[in-house]
Amino acid sequence: MANAVWDTTVPTLTPVRDEIDAVLADFVSAQEQSAPGAEMAPLFTTVRRLLFSNGKRLRPLLCVAGWHAAGAPGDSHAVLRVAAALELFQMFALIHDDVMDDSEARRGGPSAHRALAAAYLKAGGQRSRAETYGRGAAILLGDLLLVWSDEMLSGAGLGTRARARVLPLVDSMRTELVYGQYLDLLSTGRISQDVKAALRVARYKTAKYTVERPLHLGVALADGAAQLQQHCSDFAIPLGEAFQLRDDLLGVFGDPAQTGKPVGDDIREGKATVLLALAIQNASKAERRLLSTLVGDPNLKGEDIGRVRTVLEATGARQQVETMITTRRDAALAALERADLPPHVTETLTRVVWMATERHG
Amino acid sequence: MANAVWDTTVPTLTPVRDEIDAVLADFVSAQEQSAPGAEMAPLFTTVRRLLFSNGKRLRPLLCVAGWHAAGAPGDSHAVLRVAAALELFQMFALIHDDVMDDSEARRGGPSAHRALAAAYLKAGGQRSRAETYGRGAAILLGDLLLVWSDEMLSGAGLGTRARARVLPLVDSMRTELVYGQYLDLLSTGRISQDVKAALRVARYKTAKYTVERPLHLGVALADGAAQLQQHCSDFAIPLGEAFQLRDDLLGVFGDPAQTGKPVGDDIREGKATVLLALAIQNASKAERRLLSTLVGDPNLKGEDIGRVRTVLEATGARQQVETMITTRRDAALAALERADLPPHVTETLTRVVWMATERHG
Repeated sequence: MANAVWDTTVPTLTPVRDEIDAVLADFVSAQEQSAPGAEMAPLFTTVRRLLFSNGKRLRPLLCVAGWHAAGAPGDSHAVLRVAAALELFQMFALIHDDVMDDSEARRGGPSAHRALAAAYLKAGGQRSRAETYGRGAAILLGDLLLVWSDEMLSGAGLGTRARARVLPLVDSMRTELVYGQYLDLLSTGRISQDVKAALRVARYKTAKYTVERPLHLGVALADGAAQLQQHCSDFAIPLGEAFQLRDDLLGVFGDPAQTGKPVGDDIREGKATVLLALAIQNASKAERRLLSTLVGDPNLKGEDIGRVRTVLEATGARQQVETMITTRRDAALAALERADLPPHVTETLTRVVWMATERHG
Repeated sequence: MANAVWDTTVPTLTPVRDEIDAVLADFVSAQEQSAPGAEMAPLFTTVRRLLFSNGKRLRPLLCVAGWHAAGAPGDSHAVLRVAAALELFQMFALIHDDVMDDSEARRGGPSAHRALAAAYLKAGGQRSRAETYGRGAAILLGDLLLVWSDEMLSGAGLGTRARARVLPLVDSMRTELVYGQYLDLLSTGRISQDVKAALRVARYKTAKYTVERPLHLGVALADGAAQLQQHCSDFAIPLGEAFQLRDDLLGVFGDPAQTGKPVGDDIREGKATVLLALAIQNASKAERRLLSTLVGDPNLKGEDIGRVRTVLEATGARQQVETMITTRRDAALAALERADLPPHVTETLTRVVWMATERHG
């Protein structure tokens, strides 16, 4: 399901995923060659497992789609490297996010810090240091991926003019992601009915970073017009919000076998999602009491997660979020129609819309 | 004392520190202008306090010295930006390092994660979340500084050829620092008498990153010869090792009022320093037992730190490290003489040698 978006009959986009994977694999191998010793092996094992498991490669796809939207043909060394750099950047963001949230799973396996702690113990490390080691090693691995993402980008062979178009967008994207993550962290654990605030976090950490900037980067690389960038924004912001809203629903109601993450983490952490804000708005006194007691308790068990879920349903919050997703999906599709892009790009982006809003994982 | 290295009578280098500080201040202010809201204030307060407190600006100075060594005159937009980028990168490294080690102090005030946790509580945050918040916010702040360091660099206005000389060095420097930090993390808590292994960590995390690469960057920027780069390495590696060895001694025997860090952290963490490795080599059975009981205990109090210190003295390890510092200092000075650099560069680098090896903070 996650990869259905790439299973397209559009000949220009079909091979691109494999090419990006090849660029990533070559890059990681080259880094491994020049690494100083066998001690680095756990870092490479972890990064390969995370990078080449079931990632959607959504940001690289959007970057390539932006490039095509601006009329550029096929692919190029530059667009593949820029797209691959986005995937390395995303892996950096996921690894640090999992450390911050102490999430145990990612892409169907252990999160980086858990995997690294386990490898440390297996190699004879002290039990009392395993958690500290795992967290520290994952912070460093995330740092490494951020550095590599940049190295991948500077190896894209951009000319002076392309660099002047692309790099400011990359700078904005990276800073926006960090701000979004910070807003997310700041609001976590503060039970709030502020839907607007929750949507603002979604806009920074997902809509701009995951959808708008990758499209903009592809367009900028192909020297597309300012009006096309505007069309991309009109499409990206509602789609990105819908993507995050779906993510919030999956975090609570999804199937771990399909999401690759345990269910209920957002509830245990007390994430200030739109879903939760709406539930608090609509809740009876008793329901509100239940939410403020249970949400944000890191030790919450399955039964209590179930009770929170029931409230999220009973208050109508789940249904309201579904409606918000539909509204935003339709807005994105309407923006796509107005943009009047080449047919194969429209087809690809339409698939992305459906994947992002109707996915199960 | 920390800044004495900049108090030089050499007219070409004296104003550079102020110029770099101005570049940094302007950059941080511009970032603040475009930040999305008042919620970001704690990040900016923290970064300003850390950046403009008593930093040695050693890496920027070495970068400018490399530039002068290659015969470039005065300073330039490019060299100031590259030098300032090194300082932002260093701040990233310190912030993440303090999170990994859970260090409480830095540059005479609280470390970033402690400062951010305190600000969170002051703003009414939950006590039970303060530590998680502080750690998460500091990880993000470090990420931001890494991204900014790169943004500073790409705003240096390097031409295509200068970029081709400079960027590969930046890539190497960043990856080497992360590897050095990882080797450090991996060896921490493993009581070992392996001096060679401890020196290898010092080479990666300090000698190359702190001394060699900044010099190389300055030389590359000014298009200096390969032979000059070799001279810089011959100077930098022994000096960098000596710098780290001095750091290890200061961490155990230094005066917190001058180092800006509490004494004994390395002992509590069980850092695999050369100092500790030598002590274990030389220790009697009873001394070895004492070291393996106390070193690496995070709750160690002043009295026990004192007992470890006594063993580090009694085994002769402290004196051996002093001798190693002297040997390396002399090797660096000899390399400097062989390099036959312009007199004001030789004078500056000689000051750096004495500062790095004889400093108290």
